[in-house]
Amino acid sequence: MAALWHLVVGRPLRSSETEGEQITPVEGLSALSLDALTSVAYGPEAIIVVLAAAGAGALHLVLPVTLVIVGLLALLVISYRQVIDAYPGGGGAYAVSRANLGHGASLVAAAALVVDYTLTVAVSVSAGVAALTSAFPALVSATVPLCLAVLALVTALNLRGLGETARAFLLPTLVFIGGLLAIIAVGLVHPLALHAAQPGRSLLPSHATEVVGILLLLKAFSSGCSALTGVEAIANGVPLFREPRVARAKRTEALLGSILGVMLVGLAVLAQRWHIGPRSNQTVLSQIMGEAVGRHWAYYVVSLTTTVVLALAANTSFGGLPVLASLLARDDYLPHLFGLRGDRQVFANGIWVLAGLAAILLVVSGGNTNSLIPLFAIGVFTGFTLSQTGLVVHWRRTRPPRWWLRATLNATGAVVTGIATVIFLVTKFAEGAWVVVLAVPAFVWLFVRIHAYYHGVAEALGIDQVPERPHGRRTVVVVPVTHVSRLTERALSEALSMGQRVEAVSVAIVAPGEQVPAVGSTPIEDLWRQWDPGVPLTVLPTEYASVVRPVVAYIDELVAAEADADVVVLIPAVAPSHLRHSTLHNHIDFVLSNALRNRSDVVVARVTEPVEPPREASPEPR
Amino acid sequence: MAALWHLVVGRPLRSSETEGEQITPVEGLSALSLDALTSVAYGPEAIIVVLAAAGAGALHLVLPVTLVIVGLLALLVISYRQVIDAYPGGGGAYAVSRANLGHGASLVAAAALVVDYTLTVAVSVSAGVAALTSAFPALVSATVPLCLAVLALVTALNLRGLGETARAFLLPTLVFIGGLLAIIAVGLVHPLALHAAQPGRSLLPSHATEVVGILLLLKAFSSGCSALTGVEAIANGVPLFREPRVARAKRTEALLGSILGVMLVGLAVLAQRWHIGPRSNQTVLSQIMGEAVGRHWAYYVVSLTTTVVLALAANTSFGGLPVLASLLARDDYLPHLFGLRGDRQVFANGIWVLAGLAAILLVVSGGNTNSLIPLFAIGVFTGFTLSQTGLVVHWRRTRPPRWWLRATLNATGAVVTGIATVIFLVTKFAEGAWVVVLAVPAFVWLFVRIHAYYHGVAEALGIDQVPERPHGRRTVVVVPVTHVSRLTERALSEALSMGQRVEAVSVAIVAPGEQVPAVGSTPIEDLWRQWDPGVPLTVLPTEYASVVRPVVAYIDELVAAEADADVVVLIPAVAPSHLRHSTLHNHIDFVLSNALRNRSDVVVARVTEPVEPPREASPEPR
Repeated sequence: MAALWHLVVGRPLRSSETEGEQITPVEGLSALSLDALTSVAYGPEAIIVVLAAAGAGALHLVLPVTLVIVGLLALLVISYRQVIDAYPGGGGAYAVSRANLGHGASLVAAAALVVDYTLTVAVSVSAGVAALTSAFPALVSATVPLCLAVLALVTALNLRGLGETARAFLLPTLVFIGGLLAIIAVGLVHPLALHAAQPGRSLLPSHATEVVGILLLLKAFSSGCSALTGVEAIANGVPLFREPRVARAKRTEALLGSILGVMLVGLAVLAQRWHIGPRSNQTVLSQIMGEAVGRHWAYYVVSLTTTVVLALAANTSFGGLPVLASLLARDDYLPHLFGLRGDRQVFANGIWVLAGLAAILLVVSGGNTNSLIPLFAIGVFTGFTLSQTGLVVHWRRTRPPRWWLRATLNATGAVVTGIATVIFLVTKFAEGAWVVVLAVPAFVWLFVRIHAYYHGVAEALGIDQVPERPHGRRTVVVVPVTHVSRLTERALSEALSMGQRVEAVSVAIVAPGEQVPAVGSTPIEDLWRQWDPGVPLTVLPTEYASVVRPVVAYIDELVAAEADADVVVLIPAVAPSHLRHSTLHNHIDFVLSNALRNRSDVVVARVTEPVEPPREASPEPR
Repeated sequence: MAALWHLVVGRPLRSSETEGEQITPVEGLSALSLDALTSVAYGPEAIIVVLAAAGAGALHLVLPVTLVIVGLLALLVISYRQVIDAYPGGGGAYAVSRANLGHGASLVAAAALVVDYTLTVAVSVSAGVAALTSAFPALVSATVPLCLAVLALVTALNLRGLGETARAFLLPTLVFIGGLLAIIAVGLVHPLALHAAQPGRSLLPSHATEVVGILLLLKAFSSGCSALTGVEAIANGVPLFREPRVARAKRTEALLGSILGVMLVGLAVLAQRWHIGPRSNQTVLSQIMGEAVGRHWAYYVVSLTTTVVLALAANTSFGGLPVLASLLARDDYLPHLFGLRGDRQVFANGIWVLAGLAAILLVVSGGNTNSLIPLFAIGVFTGFTLSQTGLVVHWRRTRPPRWWLRATLNATGAVVTGIATVIFLVTKFAEGAWVVVLAVPAFVWLFVRIHAYYHGVAEALGIDQVPERPHGRRTVVVVPVTHVSRLTERALSEALSMGQRVEAVSVAIVAPGEQVPAVGSTPIEDLWRQWDPGVPLTVLPTEYASVVRPVVAYIDELVAAEADADVVVLIPAVAPSHLRHSTLHNHIDFVLSNALRNRSDVVVARVTEPVEPPREASPEPR
C-alpha cells in the first residue's frame, strides 16, 4: 500500500529539497496567472448566456458590457500594482486585512477566499471539460466523470508537490496565449471558415423571456466579472519572483492585464459580429474558434490546450487554499491538522479538503460551468474590496510620498469593487449567490468557535506554563486475558516489569440456558492452576453478552480501592503478519480499548505478540 | 449516540431474559414457516414468466408444472418428518451432514445455506415490495428505496432480538393464510369481479420467443421450485416446540405441506382459467386476487398483509444465518467475531453481514424478484440433497425398526432433489445460476482457509499449552511530548511510576527555508530547563515533515541499546469532553499509535487528561 502511494505521490522530501528556483515575468504568467487568463473560456460565455434571455437582439450588448468589465480590469491592475509596492512579502487579502482592518475583517476575507478557491477549482475543471466536450461532442454524457478524473489528476499532482512540475506549465500557457491571440487575429482580419456548420443546437429562445433593462445589463455585467477572478494572484506571490522582485511582479501584472483585456475585447467583437449565441454542448469559445479557423488542427490544438491550462488553473487554488488553511491553523482558527505538512512537504489535509469540496460542487452542478457562475466572483470581489480598503488604511498610516494619490486610487478600486459585489449579490441572489451569503458567515463562525476552543484548552491544560514536578507512585497492572498462551506469558511479564501489583482478569460469558459457573470451575482456571504464574486470576461470569461491561466494572472497583496508585490496563493482542488476518483477531482488544479510550483515571497499554502461522499449515480441517 | 441506539434496539439483555416460551403447531407456522408459505407470492409467477416466453398458448402448462412441484413438495414433507424423528435436537443441513457425511460435505452445506439465507432475504423483501407496488402502482419508481427501507426495518427488529415480537407474527400469518385461501375459494366458486380491468401492460410476447419443449418445461419447473424453499425450517427448529416436541413439529410440517400445496394448486387453476400472464408492475398474485374479488378492501387487506408477511419471512434467514455463522465461528471456520453475542444476546455481526449482502443483491437486481429467482433454490436444494443423503447414512448406522423403509424414503428424496438441483444448474446457468456456482466453492475455500489459519495461530502461540513462568524486567519509558503542560506532567508522573528510566522526546520540524536549530536552543528546551522535571528531554530536529519518523528511529535505537529491558512508549493525549472536538487534538497520538500498532518489541501506552474548556470561553480572538 505504502509503496503504491509513493509511486503516485513520490518519495518523502526534506524541507531543503523544496526550495525551487525563482521565476521571471513570463514564467509568472504560467505560475500565477492561469486562473485569470483562462477565465476567457467562461467569462464571455457568461455574458452571452444572460443576454440571450432577451433574445437574439440583445446580443449587440456583448461588446459594451465587455468594455465596462475591461475598464474595471484596468482599475484592478493599477490597484494591484500598488498592493505589490506596499506588500512585497505577498499581500493576500487575509494578510492585508489582518494588518490594517483587524481580526473581524481578516476572517471575512479568509472565509471569502476559502469559498472562492473552492469555486475556482470547480469552475476551472468544469470549463476545461466543457472545452474538451465541445471539441469531442461524443464525450458530453461523461461530463461529471471527466470532471472528477481531471480533479483527481490535479489533486494527485498537488499531493506530490509542484516543485518539479511548475516549469512544465510554461509551454501549454504560451501555446494557449499565442494560439488564442492568433485565432482572434485571424478572425478579425479574415476568418478562414466563415459560417462553418456548428454542432449542437442553438439555445437562443425564440421569444425573449426578459426585456433589455438595467437589471439584465447588471446581471450580464456580474456574470462577466467572473473573467476578472485571479488578477490578485500575482500580488500574493511576489516572493516567488527573481530580484528585483517588485519590478518584475508589477511588470507581470501589467502583462496579464494587457493580454486578458485584448482577449476579452477581441472575443466580444467576434461574438457580436458572428451573432454567437449559447448552444447545447458547445462553448462560446469553441464556436468562435470554429468560425474563425474551422474545426481543423488549429481548433483542436487550442481546444485541448484550453482543457490543459484550465486544469492547471485549478492549481492556483491548490497552491493557495492549503497555505491559507495552514496560516489559519497557526493562528488557531482551524484545526492544527491543517498546519501539518505531509511527506512531500505540502499541506496534504488542505489539499484533500479542497478536492472534496470541489468534487461536491462538480457533482451537484452536474459539471455545468454556467450553473456555478452565479456563486463565483462574489468571494473574489469581497477579497478585492477588503484588500484595497486595507491598502487605503495602510497608505494613511505610512504616508509615503504622494500617499494621497495612492490612497485615492485604492479607494476608487475599493468603492468600485464594493459596488460590484453588491450588484452580484442583488442580481444573482436567487440563482445561487445565497449559498455564498450563507457560507461566508458560516466559515467565520467556525473560525471564531475553533479559536475560542483552543484558547480555552490552552488555559485549562496550562500549556506553556511551568507545571508541578512529576513524581512516581505505586502501579497496579490489570491484564485482561482470554486464554493461556505465550502471549499471556508475555503480557504478564511486561505487567510484572511495570507494576508492584498485577491482576489477571477473564470474563466467562454465560450463554442463554447455561449455568453460571462456580468460582474456580472454568477451564481457564484449571489451566492457570497448572501454570501457576504467580499472578492471581479473577474470572468474572456475566449473563450479559459484552465482555467490556464486567471488565470495566472490575477496573472501577480497583481504581476506587487503590486511590493512591496508578492503574494500568495492559491489553494483550496478536499482531498478525498480514493485514487481511486482522479481522480474525483481537476483538477484545478493540472493544476494550475503545471503552477505555477517554478514561483519564487509567493508563491503557497494549502488548503485541507477532504471529506468523506456519506456511505449510495443513488446510485439512481438524 | 448510545442512548439513540438503545432506543432503536432496546436495552442490553441478560442471557436468562431470552428464554422465551415454547410454541404450538399454529405458532410454529408463523415462527418457522413464513418463508415457505409466502413463496406462493413468487413461485407461481416464476412459472408463468418462463412459460410466457413461448406465447399465450403455453400458459395451459402452468397447472401440470405446478402439480409436479406439489408432488415434490409431498415427498419433501414426508422426508422432513423423518428428519424430525432422527434429529429432534434440530437437524439443519450443516449439523446432519457434519454428523453423517464428514467435514467436506458439511462445509458445502454451510456454504449453500449462506447463499440461500441471503437470497431468501432479498427475494422475500423484493416480493413484499412488489405486492405493495402492485396495490399502489404510484410507488413503482421507489422500488429500490422501499426494498432497502423494509430491509432496514427487518434488520433493526433482529438487532433488538425477536423474543418479544415473535408472537406478534401470528396475526398477520393467519390473516394471510385465511385471506388467501378465502380469495382462492371465491375465485374457484364464483369470482366477484370477473374480468375487472388490470393496471399495467401485458408482458406476453406477441410472437413466442421459445418453443414449448422439454427445456422450457424444465426451466418452468426449476423456477417454480422456488415455492418449495423454506420447508426445511421446521426440522431445524424442533427444540422451539412445546412437548411432545417431535409430534408437534411433525404435525406442523404436515400442516405447512397441506396449506402450501392447496394454495399452489388453487392459484395455478385460477391463473390458467383466467389466462393470467406477466404484466408490468403487477404481480401474478395481485392479478389473481384482483380478478377474484376486485380491487376492493379484501384485495388491499391481503396485499398489505402479503407485504408484511414477506418482510417477516426474511426473519427466517435472520434467525438462521447468524446462528449458523456462530456455529461456524465456534468450529474455527469463520472469524470468531461471528460468535460474539451483542448486547441484546443476538449475533449482531451475522445480522449486519446478512443485511449488507441482501442490500447488495437488492440494489444490483433493482429490487426485481424475477431476476433473483434463477439464483434461488439451488442452495436450498443442495441442502435438501445433503441432509437427506446424511439421513440415509444415519438410518444405515442406527438401524431402528423398519430402517430400510425410512432409508428408502430419504434416498428417494435425495435422488429427486439432487436431480432437481442439476436441472436448476443446467437450465438457469446463464441467467444467474453461475453466481451460485462460483459463490458456494468460494465460501468453502474461505472456511477452509480460515480454519487452517486459526489452527496455525493456535500452534504458533501455544494456546491452551502451559507457557513459561512470567518474570519482570527493568522498564524504560519513552514519553513523546509536543509542549509543556499539566498533561506533560501527568504523563511523566505515570512514566516514573512504571519504569526505572524515563526519557522525554520531542520533534522540531524544520520548515522549508528555516535553519536547523542548535541543541538546547528550541523554546521547549528553554521551558524544560525552567521546569526541571528530573527527566531528560531530547529534541529531534527533522527536515522531513513527519514527526513519526524521528520518534520511531529514536525508539529503535533505544530498543537496541536496552536489550535487557522492556521499552514502553507512553503517549500523552487530550480527552475532549465532546466528540466533535476530537478532530482538534491528538494528531501525534493518532499517527504514532498507528505506526507502533504492530510493533511487538515495545508496549504502547496512552495516558489521557480530560479537558473541558471554560463554558464562558471568550469568543474574542486573541
